[in-house]
Formats: sequence, C-alpha cells, structure tokens
Amino acid sequence: MRSSWKRRLLKKVYEGAGKPRVRLALSGGPEVLTVGEPGAGTILIRDWRTLAGLALNPDIAFGESYIDRRIEVEGNLVDVLTAVSNASLARARKHKRWSAVSSAWLTLMQRNTREGSRRNVHHHYDIGNEFYQLWLDERLLYTCAYFPDPSVTLEEAQSAKMDHVCRKLRLQPGERVIEAGCGWGALAIHMARHYGVKVKAFNISREQIAYARWRAHQEQVSHLLEFIQDDYRNIHGSCDVFVSVGMLEHVGKSHHAEFSQVIARTIGNAGRGLLHFIGRNYPAPLNAWIRKRIFPGGYPPAMREVMQIFEPADLAVLDIENLRQHYALTLEHWLERFENAVPTVASMFDDRFVRIWRLYLAGSAAAFRAGSLQLYQVVFAGRKCEAIPWTRAYLYDSSREAEWIRATS
Amino acid sequence: MRSSWKRRLLKKVYEGAGKPRVRLALSGGPEVLTVGEPGAGTILIRDWRTLAGLALNPDIAFGESYIDRRIEVEGNLVDVLTAVSNASLARARKHKRWSAVSSAWLTLMQRNTREGSRRNVHHHYDIGNEFYQLWLDERLLYTCAYFPDPSVTLEEAQSAKMDHVCRKLRLQPGERVIEAGCGWGALAIHMARHYGVKVKAFNISREQIAYARWRAHQEQVSHLLEFIQDDYRNIHGSCDVFVSVGMLEHVGKSHHAEFSQVIARTIGNAGRGLLHFIGRNYPAPLNAWIRKRIFPGGYPPAMREVMQIFEPADLAVLDIENLRQHYALTLEHWLERFENAVPTVASMFDDRFVRIWRLYLAGSAAAFRAGSLQLYQVVFAGRKCEAIPWTRAYLYDSSREAEWIRATS
Repeated sequence: MRSSWKRRLLKKVYEGAGKPRVRLALSGGPEVLTVGEPGAGTILIRDWRTLAGLALNPDIAFGESYIDRRIEVEGNLVDVLTAVSNASLARARKHKRWSAVSSAWLTLMQRNTREGSRRNVHHHYDIGNEFYQLWLDERLLYTCAYFPDPSVTLEEAQSAKMDHVCRKLRLQPGERVIEAGCGWGALAIHMARHYGVKVKAFNISREQIAYARWRAHQEQVSHLLEFIQDDYRNIHGSCDVFVSVGMLEHVGKSHHAEFSQVIARTIGNAGRGLLHFIGRNYPAPLNAWIRKRIFPGGYPPAMREVMQIFEPADLAVLDIENLRQHYALTLEHWLERFENAVPTVASMFDDRFVRIWRLYLAGSAAAFRAGSLQLYQVVFAGRKCEAIPWTRAYLYDSSREAEWIRATS
Repeated sequence: MRSSWKRRLLKKVYEGAGKPRVRLALSGGPEVLTVGEPGAGTILIRDWRTLAGLALNPDIAFGESYIDRRIEVEGNLVDVLTAVSNASLARARKHKRWSAVSSAWLTLMQRNTREGSRRNVHHHYDIGNEFYQLWLDERLLYTCAYFPDPSVTLEEAQSAKMDHVCRKLRLQPGERVIEAGCGWGALAIHMARHYGVKVKAFNISREQIAYARWRAHQEQVSHLLEFIQDDYRNIHGSCDVFVSVGMLEHVGKSHHAEFSQVIARTIGNAGRGLLHFIGRNYPAPLNAWIRKRIFPGGYPPAMREVMQIFEPADLAVLDIENLRQHYALTLEHWLERFENAVPTVASMFDDRFVRIWRLYLAGSAAAFRAGSLQLYQVVFAGRKCEAIPWTRAYLYDSSREAEWIRATS
C-alpha cells in the first residue's frame, strides 16, 4: 500500500513538471520506483520526504535537495536540466501556488534599494577573486561571451565580445564613457587600451573595484580610467557613451525609472549607449532557488519592461541582438573549467558549495538552451546623436575591422 | 493697434511650436510681420484667421491651410518641416489641448475593426494604381527601402530591402510563407522567384490584389503564390515563416492581441517571422492631419506596445534593426519623383490633391529625419525554431550572399 501512494506522488511530480524527457526514480524503499523514460538521463530522489518537497515547492526543493545529495542526477547535468526546462516551458505559465509564495517572499527580502543592492552584490561578487579565477577566462569576464564561431576559445570569445560592444558603440579616441557595473574592469580597460577612450567605471563590489584598479595599473592605462566604488544611482557627470554589461539584471524592474534618469542625465540627447543583459520573452520572476542561493534580488526583465528605460528619456532603440545561444556555450565553458577545479573549490569552501555552483552553472546553461532566458544587447541613442551608422555592415566587415583597430590603438 | 495683437499672436504661435529654426511671416495686412530667423526657410501665413487656426489646433490647421494655399513654404519643404519637427520634439510631449480633442475624435471615427480596416485601407490604397506608378519604384514597393549605400538607386534599394528581409528570415526552398498585408505583391513574388518558397499573401485592398495576381502571372510564378483578398484576422493555415512589411501601422494597438493570435496559430512554436513597421520612441498618436487626409486609423506603435504581440505567444525577439535614416531617404526619392509627375497628378486629380501629397511625403521625410518616427524590422522565433543563426555575419557577407542566391534561385 505505501508504495502505491509513493508511486502516485512520483507520477504527480513528473506530470507537474510537464513530463520531461528524463526518468524520475525514487529510492529509499524496498524497491526503486520509476516514471518516464531515460531520454536525457535520470533524476534519482533518495526518499519520499524529498519527493513530497518537490510536489509542494519544486523550484526551491529541487536545488536544496540537490545540495544535500537527496537528489542525484545520472547523465549529463546540462542535458537533463534542459529537458526539464523544455517541459516546464511547454506547460507555460501555469500558476504554481507554493512557488509563487516563496518567490514573492524572496522578492520582498531582496529589494534592490541602495542598501539592498550593496548586500545583494556583496553576497555574490565578494566571495573571493581567487574563486572566480579558477573558472572564468584570464581577464575575469563574468558575462556572456561572443563566439564568432562556436569553436573559438573562451578567451577569444570574451575578447570578441568586448570588440563587438565597442564596435556597436563606434567608440572614437578621446570620447568619454561611463560604465555602470564594471565587474573586474576588463571592458573598461579594453575600451581605454584599444579604443583610446576615457572611462569612468562604477561598481559597488569592493573586491572587484580593488582588482580592476590593480589591473589597470598593470596594463598602464590608469590615466584613462577612473574606477569608482559607488551605486549606479550616484553616477554623476556627463559622457558621450553609456555602457552597462550584465548589470540590468541586478537593477530590478521597479528601479528602471531611476536607471533611465541616470542614463538621460549622463548622455543628454546627443549621446548613445548599450545595455547587455539577461532577459525574458515575457515577465516572470527569476527561479526562486537561484535567487536564494546565487543572485539575491536578480530579475531578468522582459523587453517590454526594458522599454521603461528608453521611453521616458526619448531614446531611440537602434539595434537589438539576441545572443542566447552564446550564453549557453559560455556557461558550458565555465562549467567545464569549474569541474576541473572542483578539488580546489572543495578545499576552499565545501562540498555543498560545489554542488550549489554546479547546479547554478548547469541550470543556467539549460535555461539559455531551452529559451527560458535570453541574452540581449540593445544599442540606443538620443535624438541628436550623430554617430548613427548607415547600416550594420561595418560590424561584420573584417577588412574595416582591421582599419578600425589600426586607427584607434 | 491691430498689428500689435497680430504680432503677439504670431510670436505665441512661434513659441508654441518650440521656436523652430525658420522664419514665420504673416501677410494680409499693410505690412508683413515676421518672427524668427530664416534658418531652413520661411513659412508664409496669408491672413490672421489662418494664424488663429494655427494657435488653436496646429496639427490640423497647418495641413488644411497648406492645401488651401493660405500657408506657403519658401525654401526646401523637407528642411523647413524637419526644423519644425526638431523644435516640436525638443518641447516634448507638452499637452496640446485642442489637438488632443480632434485627435481623440479621429481615433474613434477611424477604428480598425474589420469594417473600419476595409474602409481605411480603401481610402488610401484604392485611389488608382496609375497614381502610385508615377512615383514609386517599378515594382510598386510602398515601404521603406534599404540602401546598402546612400548612393544606390531607389530600384536597387527596394530590391536590397527584399533580400535583406529574405536573408533575415533565412528562407529555404519549399518553405511555406504567410504574408500579411502584401501591397502590390512585390515581396511575395520576390520570395517565390528568388528563394523558391510558397507564399500565401493577404491584403484587403481590391486593386492591389488584382495587380499582384496579374504581376505573378507575368513573372510566371503564379504556381507558388496565392493572393487572398481578406482581413489579416481571417488568415488561416500553418506556415514556417510569417512576414508582414508595413501593415502593423494599420493594425492599431488595440488589435495587437488579435494579431498575436494570428501569428501564434500560423507558425506554432517552431516557426519564425519578421515584422517591418513604422514605430516610435514612446506612445503617441500619429499626426492628426496625416490621419485625416492620408492614413485613417494609422498608429505607429512604441516598441513596448509591439511586445504585446510577442509576449503572449512566447516568441523570442532575435534581432531588431532601426532603419529610420533609410525611410527618410526613401521618402526623398518618392518626393522627387512625385514633383516630376506633378503636371500628370494635377490632371488626374487637382491642385489640392497635389498639395496634400506633397505635404504628406515631405512631412514624413522630416519626421524620420528628426526622429519623431522610427522604422523597425523585428525578427522573432518560436521556442522550438531551429533556423536561428549563430551570428548576423551572414547578412553582410557578400561572398555568402552570392552562394545563397545561387543555391536558391
């Protein structure tokens, strides 16, 4: 009898997940119960309490149980999670009661006020540069790379991403650039070094700013760069170009109006800019487990919500590119490097930490593969901007590219 | 004394227009009164009643007075109207009471219900193919062209536009395409002829559909084409690719949800598509005079409003390109051809008709130059679409382009 309700619950969880192309297996009893076919792999649930947790609040319970080894995954983790994401998207936007409650609670607790942003950013970015050095590229770019061809290395793809951004912005030597959310400073340094611009770069992460200053000094471009440890809301001064790569997800939709004002007052109506961010096809909260464990306060906006930034400032959208596939591949590179560094990571932190980060990296790769997350680059300009290109051909013309770099380096 | 209040009113109208870089002159009295400097040219107002009309309801009064020769423009008409547009945008979104009332009235009268759409489209597109043949390109494309270089001819630019659209869609021989709002059929015929696809093309304009069928027969591609005289809401069947060039402006924002359903039910979640339309940086009604005289029911949507089409159907935005400068140039080509055909147009219609169309073409060129209108191409795809390119380089690679055309023609 007992195994009969367990079997029913297992089936319910499987159906609730939209019948993904994986096998769900429940152990812990006299026999292993299963449902589904092992398409992409098997999700092994250790006991019925874990199964009950999945039934009540799948988003949080899956991650938490995975950390505790009460859930194990057999087969390629990214493939299995992609199958789960695909199935969940096919069910599309059915209301999940328990998830919604915990999700709303997290949203409240992790508001991106000035104080909240500082705390949220500290949570993720100040856990030690040494950790990120284990699995990011050598210049520590922690945003989607751009692979002109899928076969190039991560280092080449991150370099290509920076050039793609700089070319989209048509940077000219001597121009003034403001960067909001500069990470470890790689893009600011690249812009100064290869395009001859002056950059004021803002970030509230103490450790990242310290590293960026050291790096700029090493690369002898300190005279062109100012790294400022401050909130984006305190950005001051004026500039020709505003750029922000991978920060909008941390701004939160209720702060888009403030972000709009910052852009408008820095570039005026003659400037231009680029936002690079994780977005969505329609408004939905970020996965609750990712917010709990990885990105407190994170929110990938839908394009409609992003327009709240451009509309009030009368900024024209010039170009939007979706690089979703590039982020899936970037994450696969990171995951591979991370797996190679697991012994070191485990010795720096612990096994639970390893499992949190493995699930986060693999789950994010799966979300970009399945299309529940998108990666957007948006180029925009004020009404009086005179640097608007006639076509986008120059972005892809390798002969002009060579000229461009000669002229500006 | 009388000239003193006229002078004050003239100054008030000039300031109300945001002090454009033109001269405003009022004749009809013992002396010609002027305000402003003749930067781009002079706007000559024939009498004080016309001036009073401009003070009360500038959008409608300017156009109506221009038709009646109660307003004349000295200098290049596009330049003068661009100066007026620039000044008006700098004042940005101040409430204009009288304009708002007449604007709301027009919106109500020109609703894009099925019957309304038929009437609105008939108003503009069924005034005789002969008229449009006088000033459009030889294949009668009445939408923004794409100039790989500003110096190419209008014919070349319209051809390049069609190829730009087809390449963005990555059309493959044998694929099924649905086109909503096909004009005189040029794109449908081009897709069938050069890319080997089967097209079902919809349009509610009787004259355009008749012409398109004749043209397809002439070009011997009738077997690949079906031209259907029907409303977009009645589009049926399924397809690989959905395309609509220059129709969304006639749909109206209150019908975006219906348009979304049409796209979703034809392409499912594996298809892809492109919308090409006139848009705005922020929501605002189309100029009231243009709606009254030229495009009843016309509404160029803001990008935020356009997202109402993609969001409910879980369609991912892949690529957005702003071709505003290309539409300004297209309109300048049309205006030049129109001016050369004025004697013929006047003999087919009358002098008032000539002035209406001159003002419409010049005013539209000015709006795209000043940036009060934008031209967007949006590429989108369902979650399971497999034809998503890795980068956009293939759009600009002329060696691959040659291969592409060889392979498909």
